[in-house]
Amino acid sequence: MRVSTRTQRRRIQRISVSDDPGADAAGPLAGARADLLAVEEPLEIRIGGQPLTVTMRTPGDDIDLAAGFLFTEGLLSPAVDLRQIRMCDENVADATLEVADLPSPAELERATDARRAQRKAQRNFLTTSACGVCGKESIDAIRVRSRYDLTADQLQVSPVVLAGLPDRLREAQRVFASTGGLHAAGLFTADGSLAVLREDVGRHNAVDKVIGWALRAGRLPLSGHILMVSGRASFELVQKAAVAGIPVLAAVSAPSSLAADLAEETGMTLVGFLRGNSMNGYTGLQRLTGITTPA
Amino acid sequence: MRVSTRTQRRRIQRISVSDDPGADAAGPLAGARADLLAVEEPLEIRIGGQPLTVTMRTPGDDIDLAAGFLFTEGLLSPAVDLRQIRMCDENVADATLEVADLPSPAELERATDARRAQRKAQRNFLTTSACGVCGKESIDAIRVRSRYDLTADQLQVSPVVLAGLPDRLREAQRVFASTGGLHAAGLFTADGSLAVLREDVGRHNAVDKVIGWALRAGRLPLSGHILMVSGRASFELVQKAAVAGIPVLAAVSAPSSLAADLAEETGMTLVGFLRGNSMNGYTGLQRLTGITTPA
Repeated sequence: MRVSTRTQRRRIQRISVSDDPGADAAGPLAGARADLLAVEEPLEIRIGGQPLTVTMRTPGDDIDLAAGFLFTEGLLSPAVDLRQIRMCDENVADATLEVADLPSPAELERATDARRAQRKAQRNFLTTSACGVCGKESIDAIRVRSRYDLTADQLQVSPVVLAGLPDRLREAQRVFASTGGLHAAGLFTADGSLAVLREDVGRHNAVDKVIGWALRAGRLPLSGHILMVSGRASFELVQKAAVAGIPVLAAVSAPSSLAADLAEETGMTLVGFLRGNSMNGYTGLQRLTGITTPA
Repeated sequence: MRVSTRTQRRRIQRISVSDDPGADAAGPLAGARADLLAVEEPLEIRIGGQPLTVTMRTPGDDIDLAAGFLFTEGLLSPAVDLRQIRMCDENVADATLEVADLPSPAELERATDARRAQRKAQRNFLTTSACGVCGKESIDAIRVRSRYDLTADQLQVSPVVLAGLPDRLREAQRVFASTGGLHAAGLFTADGSLAVLREDVGRHNAVDKVIGWALRAGRLPLSGHILMVSGRASFELVQKAAVAGIPVLAAVSAPSSLAADLAEETGMTLVGFLRGNSMNGYTGLQRLTGITTPA
């Protein structure tokens, strides 16, 4: 059985520079100590034997990661038999993950499907459009359409609950405090209860692990849930949340312009700069309860 | 002429939750205000007319971004005629960038080269190896070899200079203070002078913009320089710095395990958690001057 490590112990020098100009003659002080680094390792995902992608990730929850990645990229339907996702070789430090192919039984169909999936996965990296891709079309090329309608989600959330989520996320992070190098994504219910927490060196991977967990647990769509992320909210994260049917995305840091645009278009509630007792509400504010606007 | 905007003005609600339980009856306070978001837009890069990749980036320095991306992915030599990189259409909000092909004159060669370049670019996303890619081989599949030897770089840097870089980087960031959503990469000399600063919603893009600027200015390799990044140090950032011949990488946050491994292997000095008067030295500490180890 593969031992998946999320941190690596490393001997470092902790160096301190003195504020006191008179102390400069002695020079900066250094002391050796052990430090924990967040592990980053490549994971190769294959479909039907064909290599699809290599992602840099923190080991752990690899099958959730693969399921979430494939689903949010539009390559898996929620109904697929996920027992077919397995690790190729659990004894090696960086793993290869094999997704046996989707419903089609015949070998020929399987190969065709895998190639189609491969082309779709390349969409983010390589558009196949002829010259002339510009403006709206480039965004369309990277869009994954969600099968769920967020605008129908009647979730109501109190800003008091939202304000408490960053602390709950940090408390639940076992690794973050020791390495300071892992992003977290937490799935919460409207009362602020944590459903699941996942960590990774990559924000998008942490979110894929959460969504992959939900997919494998038969919990999609994630209506009535709040996704809280430790960093910024990019277009990609809003898209992944929308594909999983999550109506509220809350981030510790700033959203990008395109993240706010996509949140508005899909009917998602987007909250950013969730720090201390305050937050910025960008879109979908009708889901926030009890707000008083000063006269 | 295209007006490239790096920020987008948006009307938001600033929501504050009271600490005072007695004030709860009134509910959280909200007030509309204008907020600046970091712009995130797709940029398509083509080689010889063929689409190569779509990257999500903050507009500005797009040609530097494309040059830096192509170079650090191993697709351009420093000697290439970079006048051939041009924007397809400067009038649209999200741009397409055309790189006329490399030395080969004939159309056939051009097409072949572009396909080869395309395959190389897919290396990060899609390995073409047959089943059996595991362990060291997966890392090799995503490695770009540098043409420069960092171990020969005799740069000496004072930790006092390093400790001053985060402030210099922040001072130089015109946008960061207003949006809080842009990553920065700054190139410094050994005395702490800023050579160039670039910003982006993506850390890797900010670094590509710096390296692309240097490539186009004929400044490669960047021996004797320090690259300072506002976030974490990933494998990808260490690799880009190594490909550009940068001997010292300093980061405000944590490096990953693979980032430290690659820095050690290439002979790069890697410093992390550069905050206030202290920092962690991970690799290549022989370049740091005047350090006193307590007895």
